[in-house]
Formats: sequence, structure tokens, C-alpha cells
Amino acid sequence: MTGRARIRQRLARLREALERARVDALLITSVPNVTYLSGFTGEDSALMVTGRQSVLITDSRYTEQAGAECPEARVHEHRQGLLGAVTRLVRRRGLSRVGFEESMPHGWYVELRSALGARRLVLQGAVVERQRQVKDAGEVGAIRRALAVGESWWGRRRRLLRPGRTEREVAAELVYAMCRSGAQGEAFAPIVAVGGRASLPHARPGGRRLGPGRPVLLDWGAAVGSYKCDLTRVLAPSRMTARFREVYGTVLEAQEAAIAAVRPGVTAGSVDAAARRIITRAGYGKQFGHGLGHGVGLEVHELPRIRKRDGTILQPGMVFTIEPGIYLPGRIGVRIEDMVLVTDNGCEVLTTAPKKPAHRK
Amino acid sequence: MTGRARIRQRLARLREALERARVDALLITSVPNVTYLSGFTGEDSALMVTGRQSVLITDSRYTEQAGAECPEARVHEHRQGLLGAVTRLVRRRGLSRVGFEESMPHGWYVELRSALGARRLVLQGAVVERQRQVKDAGEVGAIRRALAVGESWWGRRRRLLRPGRTEREVAAELVYAMCRSGAQGEAFAPIVAVGGRASLPHARPGGRRLGPGRPVLLDWGAAVGSYKCDLTRVLAPSRMTARFREVYGTVLEAQEAAIAAVRPGVTAGSVDAAARRIITRAGYGKQFGHGLGHGVGLEVHELPRIRKRDGTILQPGMVFTIEPGIYLPGRIGVRIEDMVLVTDNGCEVLTTAPKKPAHRK
Repeated sequence: MTGRARIRQRLARLREALERARVDALLITSVPNVTYLSGFTGEDSALMVTGRQSVLITDSRYTEQAGAECPEARVHEHRQGLLGAVTRLVRRRGLSRVGFEESMPHGWYVELRSALGARRLVLQGAVVERQRQVKDAGEVGAIRRALAVGESWWGRRRRLLRPGRTEREVAAELVYAMCRSGAQGEAFAPIVAVGGRASLPHARPGGRRLGPGRPVLLDWGAAVGSYKCDLTRVLAPSRMTARFREVYGTVLEAQEAAIAAVRPGVTAGSVDAAARRIITRAGYGKQFGHGLGHGVGLEVHELPRIRKRDGTILQPGMVFTIEPGIYLPGRIGVRIEDMVLVTDNGCEVLTTAPKKPAHRK
Repeated sequence: MTGRARIRQRLARLREALERARVDALLITSVPNVTYLSGFTGEDSALMVTGRQSVLITDSRYTEQAGAECPEARVHEHRQGLLGAVTRLVRRRGLSRVGFEESMPHGWYVELRSALGARRLVLQGAVVERQRQVKDAGEVGAIRRALAVGESWWGRRRRLLRPGRTEREVAAELVYAMCRSGAQGEAFAPIVAVGGRASLPHARPGGRRLGPGRPVLLDWGAAVGSYKCDLTRVLAPSRMTARFREVYGTVLEAQEAAIAAVRPGVTAGSVDAAARRIITRAGYGKQFGHGLGHGVGLEVHELPRIRKRDGTILQPGMVFTIEPGIYLPGRIGVRIEDMVLVTDNGCEVLTTAPKKPAHRK
């Protein structure tokens, strides 16, 4: 199936949802949603999808690019503001119920309301985000490519992670290695945390140096095309303390239990529970404060959310992370993160880097 | 002045604005605005500023980090959702008029309104963004550091831009060079466009190769600390066509005229006009479709906007880009971009890379 045919299929599915919601059109303002439904990779633009047509509203910086990227959309260049162009389009087409996305800034809503009236505007929730939860074959392929690029340096990790390098240097080398392997860039600023700094789940790389006695936590991802990947590994120190070994073992056991729990028909919350149960039983329940995982695709954090009591029913084609962690402030931080694809009867782990207490050598 | 004292000063100025708007508090949900008013560098968090206190509402991933980064804020860890915590805080403090930002997603507004009632919520426009337009000394220093890092590879450009390299390879080398010089990362995905591809103002780097006969447009920036820079240069081919020379000369003349027009008290629109007049007179008015420039600081695009008819009055301490361009689709694209700081009687050009038709050697 060509990229164009996939876009057409996505638009057809969206139109079914719009019909059910009884709106004449959906105004799409979220950048990744615009990309998903048009192929356009720029910013500051909007897509208006009606029953018959989709119109990409952009400015002159992007007109030429949009023409090349969006075979399924009519490209409309606005000269004096996106919302003014949206308003004129709604009026010209006589659209009487126009859906809009919950992520749209409230200030935009106020402006559109004063131009079009509150009755014409119908809040639609996360329609496109929910559709994006289930990936099509093109998207799964794109995610696999992003992961292959993200993991490309793993075989050379001994060289990249040599003792004496700072966290910041490692982050720079890691992004460079991914770009040399075909990434457009990083999916997000990598986390490289040496020793006790790993207890900050979102630590910024700083001046701490790698050393044989220090564990290091790496959380990184590549952007390839418009798709992202996301993975975390902890490299154990050459001599592990009993506590570190226990924490690492607990996280790994929890992560594997969660992976084993993934299959179509179960809830996201039940997968979270499978990991949380093990960590809680080991006495670290309070040290695992975040959710178990999140969808990955055009965004590095998207639906579904895999967290406590979440009722989302897993479906084949969903792609998300499984990343339990235990954090003892200033002392130890361990998180292990894979990406999985829900299949017809379970899941496929897309990440390939080994998870056994990985030594640097 | 310490970082802490600067945060205190920013909060004091904000509180004056809140008093004028007669609100008891401002709910800040925009990530860079939270950083500006607290020092916090994480995401998915909110800051509630009342007359006396500021409270950072975050989740367990960030609690330890927020404690270290935000000496002026009380850190509140929520367990079940940001907006629920905001609601409880508003009720507990008995706040009766709570301002919120126009960039807040409309879906959040709907949720808060159903919990707190429409009367308690008061749309505040871009209060913090307007305050951020004028940089304090700490910010100007941070922007200078970002530019120094962004330009650090310029002296070695002969090696970096050697013929045969693809656009994508150059982008990777450029980001790597900035990170090796102290950047946390790129400010945005760099644009590297060889030959006619430069006519796409936001071209993604691809497989085109550098060659002595081909001009190349580079638009890039570094992120250092939380601050960004943004600059564009076009390297001319070894033999310029008459048309290329004319376009380049026109853009450069327009850019310098705009810089000469910058001083306190004039409007942003008049600076745009100074450049546009020259380009229009040369017959390329329609080929300069975008605005002249934009503020840069915590974000790579922020206020003020320097564009047609914009009435913003320039003030000392504002930092923005001046970047006219001429684009002949598929053939030529030239844009020249510097960052300037408005001073008491004119402006200082912060960018140092030379602008004369720069050759690769």
C-alpha cells in the first residue's frame, strides 16, 4: 500500500467517526495529527477535513513543501493568520457543525467562537489520538526503522560509554551515532544519569563521569521520518551491591511479567498491575511512582497510557512502552524500557538490546 | 544577581500584572512559562502563582528534581492527575478569580470549568509571554552563551561542509559539533538545503550532496541551559550566477536596513517594512512571504513578532531575529538571519558569523 493510500484509509476511518459525531468537518490543529492525516511534516498549520475533502491551511514558508508532501489535501496558503482563513473556509462551505480538538489552545477557541458563534463549534475530544493508537502496517514499519536506528550504536557501546566520559558527552555521542545511522535527530533529549543521579527519572545529562564502579541509566530514542522510538537500559557497575542487584532484579522481573500480560482484550490497567504487583511485593511500591508505559509513534508520548486502573482495552496494532522503575533518591535508579506491539494473541517485543544486568563490557 | 533573585523579581513583576487584572492567582501551564517563573526544567507540570506563594504541581518523576531546581516554589506532587490537584488547591485556598493562559488546551478549560465553575476562571491572554519579551541580564547572558555555542563550529566550516557530504550528514555533524561545545542539544532540527532546495524555507535535510557549484542554506541553533539561539547563513557557490548575486545582495541589503531601523520606541512593523521595502523595490516582494523575525529565548519562536503592520513597541532588552528571505521555487533560496538585542539607543547584533557572500573556503 502506498503512503497515499494509507492517508486515504485514515481519512475514511476518521470520516466514519465524524459521521457518528454528526459534525460536518473536523478542524485539526495538533501538529502530529495533521501529519497523520495529510503527510505534511511542517508546523503552524491546520487541516480541515470535511466529508469530501481535506484542506491544509498553511503559510508561504510551507506552500511548496505541502504541495509535495500532501497528495490528498488541497493546499491553501493564508496570508493573514490561520484562524481567519479557517473562519472564511467554514463560511464559504456553509459548514454548520465544525468539530475541533481538545488540545486546541483555549485562546484559539475564543477567537473562533467570536467569529463563528459557539453553536457551530463542537468539542471532539481526542478523536485522532484514539485513532492513532492502532498503528497501520506503514506505521509499524516506520517504528521498526526508528528502533533499528535507535539501537544501532548498542554493539559499539563499549567505545561510546568509556570511563571518564561525562553524561553530556555520552548524550552527544549517542545522538550523533543515531544521526549517522539515518536518524533525522533525537526523539527527545536523551537521559544519561551516572550513579545516584539515575534516581531522577528525567535527569538532564550533566558533568558526572562514567566510571567502572558506577551504574549508568540511558533513556533515549531516535526520530526517523516522522516516527519515534523510546528505550531505557541501565548498565550495571562492575561490582553490584546486594541492594542494586535486588532492585535491578525486581524491575526486570516486573517488566517481564508486564510483557507477558499484554494481549488483545485486556485493559492497560491490568498490564500496569502485573508489574506493580511484583514491585510492591518486593517492598518498593512507593518507589515506583510513574505509570508503566505510553504509546509511541508520531509522538514519543501518545495514547494508550499504560497506568493504574486505566480501562483502555488493548488491540492488535497498538505500540507502547513497558518501563517500570524503582528510584531510591540520590542512591539508585533503575528503569528498563522496551517497546511492544500488540499482536493477535500476545505481543511482540520490538526492542532487541539485552536486559540481563548489562555490563559495560 | 543570583538565579533565585531573578526568579523572585520575575514573580514580583507578574504579581503586579495579576493585581491589575484583579485575579487572585495565575495558573501557568505553558512549559517555558513554568521554567521562566520557577527554574523548573521538566514537563507535564503547572505553576500556580498567588499573591504570596508559587506552587509547582508535578508528578513523582520530577519531585526530586523540582526540589533542587525551584527554591522559590513549594513543590506539590500529585498522584492522580494535574487538573484534580489544581482544583483542590483552588478550593483549599478559597481563590475566587483564577487566571489561566490562552495557550492552555481547551479540553483542560472544560475540565476545570466543570470542577470550579466558569466564573472562577479568567482568561489572561499572553501575560507571561509578554513579560518574557524583555530579557533580564541573566537571560541575555544565557542567550549569548547559546549563540557562542551555536557559532562554535563556524571556524571549522571548511571541514564540516566538505563537498560530497549529504544535507543529512551535515545536519548530524553540526548538531554534534554544538553538543561537543557545550550544547544540551539542538534548538530545533537544523535546515540544511543544497541548491534549489533552499527555496523551501523549512526544508528537511535529505540526500542531496554538497558540491562546489551549489549554494547551501543552513538554519540552525543550539540549546544551552534552557535558552536557545537561531541563525541562518547561505554559503554561495564558487561561481555565482548573476541572478544569485542579485538575490543575495538584495536580501543582505534588506537585512542590514532592518538592523539599522531597530531602536526603542519604534514598532516591530516598521522594522519589517524597512526590509520589505528593499526587497519589493528589487521586484521580489512576492517571494518574501514570511515575517521578518521573531523573539528568541526559552523558545526558539516567541514574542515579539517582527512582521507587517505589527504594532509592538520595541524596548531595550528585547531579543529577536532579523531574517528576510527571497525564494524562487526550485531554483534559489536565500535567507540571512541574525539575532539582535535592543539597546538604549539602537541594537547590538549578537550573531558574529560574517554575512558577505560567504564562500565555503
